[in-house]
Amino acid sequence: MYEFGRSKGVNRAYSFDDVAIAPARRTRSESEVDLSWRIDAVTFDAPIVAAPMDSVMSPATAIRMGQLGGLGVLNLEGLWTRYEDPTSQYEQLTATMDQVTATRRMQQIYSEPIKPELIEQRLTEIREAGVPVAGALSPARTQQFAEVIERSPMDFFVIRGTTVSAEHVDGGEDSLNLKDFIYRLDTPVLVGGCATYRMGLHLMRAGAAGVLVGFGGGATHTTRSVLGIEVPMASAVADLAEARRDYLEESGGRYVHLIADGAVGRSGDIAKAIACGADAVMVGSPLARATEAPGRGWHWGPEAWHEKLPRGERVFFDQVGSFEEVVSGPSHVPDGTMNLVGGLRKAMALTGYTDVKSFQRIDLLVH
Amino acid sequence: MYEFGRSKGVNRAYSFDDVAIAPARRTRSESEVDLSWRIDAVTFDAPIVAAPMDSVMSPATAIRMGQLGGLGVLNLEGLWTRYEDPTSQYEQLTATMDQVTATRRMQQIYSEPIKPELIEQRLTEIREAGVPVAGALSPARTQQFAEVIERSPMDFFVIRGTTVSAEHVDGGEDSLNLKDFIYRLDTPVLVGGCATYRMGLHLMRAGAAGVLVGFGGGATHTTRSVLGIEVPMASAVADLAEARRDYLEESGGRYVHLIADGAVGRSGDIAKAIACGADAVMVGSPLARATEAPGRGWHWGPEAWHEKLPRGERVFFDQVGSFEEVVSGPSHVPDGTMNLVGGLRKAMALTGYTDVKSFQRIDLLVH
Amino acid sequence: MYEFGRSKGVNRAYSFDDVAIAPARRTRSESEVDLSWRIDAVTFDAPIVAAPMDSVMSPATAIRMGQLGGLGVLNLEGLWTRYEDPTSQYEQLTATMDQVTATRRMQQIYSEPIKPELIEQRLTEIREAGVPVAGALSPARTQQFAEVIERSPMDFFVIRGTTVSAEHVDGGEDSLNLKDFIYRLDTPVLVGGCATYRMGLHLMRAGAAGVLVGFGGGATHTTRSVLGIEVPMASAVADLAEARRDYLEESGGRYVHLIADGAVGRSGDIAKAIACGADAVMVGSPLARATEAPGRGWHWGPEAWHEKLPRGERVFFDQVGSFEEVVSGPSHVPDGTMNLVGGLRKAMALTGYTDVKSFQRIDLLVH
Amino acid sequence: MYEFGRSKGVNRAYSFDDVAIAPARRTRSESEVDLSWRIDAVTFDAPIVAAPMDSVMSPATAIRMGQLGGLGVLNLEGLWTRYEDPTSQYEQLTATMDQVTATRRMQQIYSEPIKPELIEQRLTEIREAGVPVAGALSPARTQQFAEVIERSPMDFFVIRGTTVSAEHVDGGEDSLNLKDFIYRLDTPVLVGGCATYRMGLHLMRAGAAGVLVGFGGGATHTTRSVLGIEVPMASAVADLAEARRDYLEESGGRYVHLIADGAVGRSGDIAKAIACGADAVMVGSPLARATEAPGRGWHWGPEAWHEKLPRGERVFFDQVGSFEEVVSGPSHVPDGTMNLVGGLRKAMALTGYTDVKSFQRIDLLVH
Repeated sequence: MYEFGRSKGVNRAYSFDDVAIAPARRTRSESEVDLSWRIDAVTFDAPIVAAPMDSVMSPATAIRMGQLGGLGVLNLEGLWTRYEDPTSQYEQLTATMDQVTATRRMQQIYSEPIKPELIEQRLTEIREAGVPVAGALSPARTQQFAEVIERSPMDFFVIRGTTVSAEHVDGGEDSLNLKDFIYRLDTPVLVGGCATYRMGLHLMRAGAAGVLVGFGGGATHTTRSVLGIEVPMASAVADLAEARRDYLEESGGRYVHLIADGAVGRSGDIAKAIACGADAVMVGSPLARATEAPGRGWHWGPEAWHEKLPRGERVFFDQVGSFEEVVSGPSHVPDGTMNLVGGLRKAMALTGYTDVKSFQRIDLLVH
Repeated sequence: MYEFGRSKGVNRAYSFDDVAIAPARRTRSESEVDLSWRIDAVTFDAPIVAAPMDSVMSPATAIRMGQLGGLGVLNLEGLWTRYEDPTSQYEQLTATMDQVTATRRMQQIYSEPIKPELIEQRLTEIREAGVPVAGALSPARTQQFAEVIERSPMDFFVIRGTTVSAEHVDGGEDSLNLKDFIYRLDTPVLVGGCATYRMGLHLMRAGAAGVLVGFGGGATHTTRSVLGIEVPMASAVADLAEARRDYLEESGGRYVHLIADGAVGRSGDIAKAIACGADAVMVGSPLARATEAPGRGWHWGPEAWHEKLPRGERVFFDQVGSFEEVVSGPSHVPDGTMNLVGGLRKAMALTGYTDVKSFQRIDLLVH
Repeated sequence: MYEFGRSKGVNRAYSFDDVAIAPARRTRSESEVDLSWRIDAVTFDAPIVAAPMDSVMSPATAIRMGQLGGLGVLNLEGLWTRYEDPTSQYEQLTATMDQVTATRRMQQIYSEPIKPELIEQRLTEIREAGVPVAGALSPARTQQFAEVIERSPMDFFVIRGTTVSAEHVDGGEDSLNLKDFIYRLDTPVLVGGCATYRMGLHLMRAGAAGVLVGFGGGATHTTRSVLGIEVPMASAVADLAEARRDYLEESGGRYVHLIADGAVGRSGDIAKAIACGADAVMVGSPLARATEAPGRGWHWGPEAWHEKLPRGERVFFDQVGSFEEVVSGPSHVPDGTMNLVGGLRKAMALTGYTDVKSFQRIDLLVH
Repeated sequence: MYEFGRSKGVNRAYSFDDVAIAPARRTRSESEVDLSWRIDAVTFDAPIVAAPMDSVMSPATAIRMGQLGGLGVLNLEGLWTRYEDPTSQYEQLTATMDQVTATRRMQQIYSEPIKPELIEQRLTEIREAGVPVAGALSPARTQQFAEVIERSPMDFFVIRGTTVSAEHVDGGEDSLNLKDFIYRLDTPVLVGGCATYRMGLHLMRAGAAGVLVGFGGGATHTTRSVLGIEVPMASAVADLAEARRDYLEESGGRYVHLIADGAVGRSGDIAKAIACGADAVMVGSPLARATEAPGRGWHWGPEAWHEKLPRGERVFFDQVGSFEEVVSGPSHVPDGTMNLVGGLRKAMALTGYTDVKSFQRIDLLVH
């Protein structure tokens, strides 16, 4: 705790860039490393979740993600549920234009109403491909489309907003009661973003199967400039790991998964996130570099088209290879943006860990 | 306290860029957030004061600021009190030219004498528009034009210099006695810049209604290069908050407002300033981006035209929208420079605070 | 130990750039400074080892290095043992091309099988020139070519991998048992990279004559981005110095040399490495600037051509002078990349140290 | 003291850029500020010494410096003592060329032998102008030209080398015995660079009238890259201030002046240097910006032409005004590089100090 001014205390917090993994004594073969991640009834080959962003997730790439052993999450309040065929909208959004024009265009394109029947239609399309199905909505939209969600086929439902809490106090009738909603829904729910021990514990007590850790740290976010709010990821994950542990005890055995969401741009960040205590990571920008990404290299999130206070940017990434090469190799670039799974596997092998849960205990350095 | 060399101690200080707001547990609706700021007899809709700089404040924009719910402050020793019609001078000052030419030109244009009758005239013009009226002078000019100030119609009078203290010791007859001046003036006085607990307490004891916190930290200042002096804003505000509290007790209940003045370039900085303890903020550069700003994107302060030792630069900002859009939205850019009020409101809603006074207590992170 | 999140501790670590040597009281003449380094049966004029990288080491430059008083180490799994005459391959690898093309081309060129007879041939060529002979292989290749190594003429054998440990646990039959291998080999073995006290102690106990300190810190490495692993060099060397000391005592007198490997780009870094406790340094990028360097300014390491997960880049350096001028002067540039030996000698003279072992004790500053 | 590795301790040190002056409570008028600096028999109007560098000091500008109230120091082993008329050499050294060509040219031009008669001639020229006279030599050249120095007319003699100590141990006959030399010379001697308490105390005990604080920190130095040695200035000055104080007591009253030498590029740095404890500052680069500077904007020091290991660069600065305007104003730029004396005076007035000795006690911030 730093002394700040004469009275206010502040805490020092660390981002992934501030920390590095310290190599251990024993190395292992890559063939011995098991990256599997089991959450609820599903076991994934690797602990990687694709972020529900229109720039990287379409029904097709969500299916691809599942085929590659991870979890694809479709944005259920994006282009795919507002437009029967969003090809033209994608073309408009991936054109060359300055930030102001891009923001205005996004605000205009995303003003088209959401069609509940498209929510069911897209999720069914993914289910029929035989991979795990997941969709995401903000808390407000979850309330609005609760019925559709309850009858749609999903393995996981994701509630993802700039922040979300189990208790949204505004006295109005249309705020989401998270605990009730989770209780009523058969599908396990992953909720976020959340960045502190208290917030995490509260979400866990509300019944979440998993908690997304993060707050405005992704490649497209400008939350720190606009709101002054930021929780550096490494500290946030470590804090939430503590909440997971305390809740495990308090609940008599219910383990809530932590999914690091934000600032995961390279395989090195995935390794660091797990080293800080995460069970899995949610990735956005690396997938934007895949040739099949619907955003064709452009990457943007829901904060970018807010009507009155945009808090995200449209960012461009060079495309480096196929979705498969980005996720599981082979890589042709040395910067950690391809073969995400291979990088994690290598990091664990070199430091002597053969399963993700143990790797959470490795030592870290600040530098 | 750091050990420095073998004998001298130094303190670590933090700027707004060093800190971030840590999200709390409860979120609130934006509709519940009350940003009003009451100081002396006036209640403002938002705690935002426009800096008395010729590049952003003309009688017209001072009126606009008032209409938008904030406080506009006119520079009473600038172009508007030296020239009957400063159009030509504005054109000269907003031309494309290198820094040296700009400095020389400013020195020449600002050498024109101040006309006391123009002081009264401009303030009257603002009063007649039915908004709160405020004007600013440096301590030396306050002394020089004390009579005019005493008879001019204002809701607040601002004494703003590079630094100002209640006690200016030089043995000369023409230094301002702040305590006497404030006592004689009916209008509440806002005094600054001030950056330490001691300086603040002294100004509060002199009778100031509000204290401007800051010293050479604005976008146009070069005080650190020229004088070696700087007080990073976050620490300065926190220190002054302590002085406000101690003085409240010592005075038996007189609350002196803190206005953060400097380094407030984005809505995120406004949120941080209040989180550090400020009651309001003084903003300059964001307003320079408004199409109605008299500086047409160019921004400069009084330190820039000092005859012998200029300590400010003329800086250019792209213009992003109208004065109203910059102050209260909607924003078309994601970087925090538009919809200042909306950004503050959102930050408070997301962290669960419904009034500014409570928001001063939120936790901070250093990163 | 920092507090990190609520439960995980982290340590602060320092790179060479973070530290500086603090001048002492007595200065000495350069003529009094003795830079000699004695390891096993060989005494070198200066404690400098050329890194076994195809971009800087050919049989010819390895010989040159020896003639200049240092130790040249040939990469025994590179171009010189895959191709009878690698001229064409060097031309292809030093052409102008983007990073992706370069990576693909390296992967293709380095897929040519290694010829054991070339291993013996190249080492013999160096021996016949009458300088100390050293070659390097990764742990896997050491296992594969153990027989050839055992019968090849070398003064030192270097086992160099991204990391290496005395205990490689994978249950398979083809992993290298370091202790046995060192025991059987007459030639003294230098092993690395290694970055922690524990890893170092383990390698020392396995019988290594010297330990290479470092992990992914060289100019061409991207280990931090791809794996999240990094051990800043200054801290790593200091930790290993402790291991060397403890092992010296535990073994009843066996001194294992530390060779700093990575982040040594200028003579100032050489001085810092020794000041942190190293006995010698391994250098790569400074030698890439020599006109005789086979890479003609291009510089790359084995991590760059990994089939599935490249972790190195091909980097270009302007060429500044001959191999001799780069190593021992005279220098024509003021940036520390020429006259490496002269820079170290000057640093020791100015701070009053006449031998390398004493210089290891000088004080450091963090800045 | 930081823990570093497992055994070696390191200290944190601060440069001028790391610190800022914290404003005090009372302000004073600039007219009350007395910047005079009295050392030995001379009182200067301002505590500013011009660095003995050929790029800024010619006999003409040394005279100008004295007329402006400071101390000009001529380099007695530079162009002015090697060439009867160095006009052609200046032209060659200020031509446009790359760093390597510049270094080679400097090495060639500075190989011309020094003529003792020119040493006397130049110093006499300055004396006849009626200003304080000072010349500088390195320790080796001091030894070589001891006789000439002893009979030349000077108010101060400066011994300035990369480092210098009272005890240069090399067993040779031609090293300078500082204590003897100072004892024999009537002229007060200023000695440096020196960066630690111990080194300073030693020089003070050797009889120096003043100590130059610094080691490789100037604008043209590359000491950190080439030697790994650096002592950040703020900490160095503070440490030496402690030595000055202890020596004052130990000697029963002999006050040795501290002159900060290096990293003083703007008036803000002058203020900081004194705030850290310096009595005066030695400046180089600001003077290079004067139109009368013999280097015509190019700036270089003796480290740049070392035969075998150059440790300095030739740097270019835009020219901003006359020598007088640079030293004492008026300034036309806001960045602290003009009106050095005005900047110091203003800093002291704003923080309430009227003499340099008191200003040494002001508080500092780290940021």
